[in-house]
Amino acid sequence: MTDPNPSRARLLSRLSLNQETLRQWSLPELADGCARAGLRAVGLWRAPVHAYGASAAARLLRVAGLTVSTLCRGGFFTAEDPAERAAALADNRAAIEEAATLGTDTLVLVSGGLPPGSRDLPGARERVADALAELAPYAAAHGVRLALEPLHPMYAADRCVVSTLAQALDLAERFPAAQVGVVVDTYHLWWDDTLATQLARASGAVAGGATDPERRPAPPAPSSPASPPSRIAAFQLADWITPLPEGVLLGRGQLGDGSVDLRWFRERVDATGYAGPIEVEIFNPSLWSRDGTEVLTEIITRFTHHVT
Amino acid sequence: MTDPNPSRARLLSRLSLNQETLRQWSLPELADGCARAGLRAVGLWRAPVHAYGASAAARLLRVAGLTVSTLCRGGFFTAEDPAERAAALADNRAAIEEAATLGTDTLVLVSGGLPPGSRDLPGARERVADALAELAPYAAAHGVRLALEPLHPMYAADRCVVSTLAQALDLAERFPAAQVGVVVDTYHLWWDDTLATQLARASGAVAGGATDPERRPAPPAPSSPASPPSRIAAFQLADWITPLPEGVLLGRGQLGDGSVDLRWFRERVDATGYAGPIEVEIFNPSLWSRDGTEVLTEIITRFTHHVT
Repeated sequence: MTDPNPSRARLLSRLSLNQETLRQWSLPELADGCARAGLRAVGLWRAPVHAYGASAAARLLRVAGLTVSTLCRGGFFTAEDPAERAAALADNRAAIEEAATLGTDTLVLVSGGLPPGSRDLPGARERVADALAELAPYAAAHGVRLALEPLHPMYAADRCVVSTLAQALDLAERFPAAQVGVVVDTYHLWWDDTLATQLARASGAVAGGATDPERRPAPPAPSSPASPPSRIAAFQLADWITPLPEGVLLGRGQLGDGSVDLRWFRERVDATGYAGPIEVEIFNPSLWSRDGTEVLTEIITRFTHHVT
Repeated sequence: MTDPNPSRARLLSRLSLNQETLRQWSLPELADGCARAGLRAVGLWRAPVHAYGASAAARLLRVAGLTVSTLCRGGFFTAEDPAERAAALADNRAAIEEAATLGTDTLVLVSGGLPPGSRDLPGARERVADALAELAPYAAAHGVRLALEPLHPMYAADRCVVSTLAQALDLAERFPAAQVGVVVDTYHLWWDDTLATQLARASGAVAGGATDPERRPAPPAPSSPASPPSRIAAFQLADWITPLPEGVLLGRGQLGDGSVDLRWFRERVDATGYAGPIEVEIFNPSLWSRDGTEVLTEIITRFTHHVT
């Protein structure tokens, strides 16, 4: 991936592929295909890592010259039942250990939805904070940062009671920035008119979460090396396309196919001081049915056109 | 609908049925069925009103002893093309005239989504404000209040760029409260942790739209008669159930079947000083396939149990 434009080349060097984008690839195919395409990082999911073995997966990727940008995912700790809750925390400790084995410093957490029959969103959100308090020191001891991901409000009931960047920051800010950060995923957050303010807040540039009716203020200056770290622990890209499919899980769009101003996002995220991987995470059967190399080539082209 | 509990009876007297909840009923069946059930109001949609004739529909409902809580709906004025925009404004003027003919003071507006190929949400939202400025005096001259409805963020691209109560209030507050209000629909807003603050704002109790991490503050005292009117122009109920169907339009839940704390909503909306109709608007083929009278009886039972 050489490019005559050095800033574009720098951005391309941050491109990471989340493996669920190319579910048709086995882990060895992923390692090989991404290395051939010039990528330096991939995002992994726990189930295929379990199937292959975490240590073997770590070795496979290291040999291919790839790092692991994120491990997806822990979380799902909103249960009220003490036994369910203890099981969820144990599973999250295992996920932290797997992240450490894979050599990634970022474990993505999806909080979980409402317990069956419950209508108590504030209570569920408070149990997320309690779980973070239990897990953050354990993660820190393993060199892993917890990355709390706000999911689109359409998942609030059954998947994730943390629906906005403001909510995720409200939770993360109860902990040291080095221990708990947030995931910025364009698919989940693009509709929110308070986004520019909240992204600035993630950089430490502003405190609190006032409504921001003007979506397009000038980005703040990038953090100086002396600034506290950006609260952004991971940055993921997908486009928003309609109509949504049944269940609304597998309808994400290829970069550039939808409504999201991806470059606007990338510029604002960069302005927070975040300089880490930019991970493409698209769940869509139309990508899984195609040749993986062809899709990855298309992603790189789209990334160049719509993100850099 | 006599009830030994006078406050429950008062709430039941505010129950209105939006006709799309029972799409299987013709307008005469709606008038007859709602009158027999003891309802005092219905919410109407433009297409069936056109098919029957607005004046004839007005007469039919008057004879049945029913008022019209809302007319659904105008809006869809986010087009950039001048000809499309002029056509949308003309259609909205016609909707205002129809509302006046039906004797309702409330025209529900759904703003419209992004124009094809556009990624400019702030621009589309500003065109909503421009359209309101053009239409509000015309509506006021007809005794009609414009009721801007925030729709769930899952509709931001293709249906409604106004996604939160804060955004709707930001737009409405540019105009006199008697001319432009907002619709509070539980289905669209239930996930938002700033809701209590924004509902208080709708009553005039607080200014501005700060993030509200605590969802359950005590409700403010109801407005005194000297207060400015609540910004809430209409209050609609549906429950949130999953999984969402393809297209996410027809998956609303019967009251009590889902995740929404309906009584919490009703108490907070009452506390803004809103004392108007409480309209049940559920789009779900499973209700349309049943006997209308049976469904309406069930709605009244659920309303009594979950809302009063």
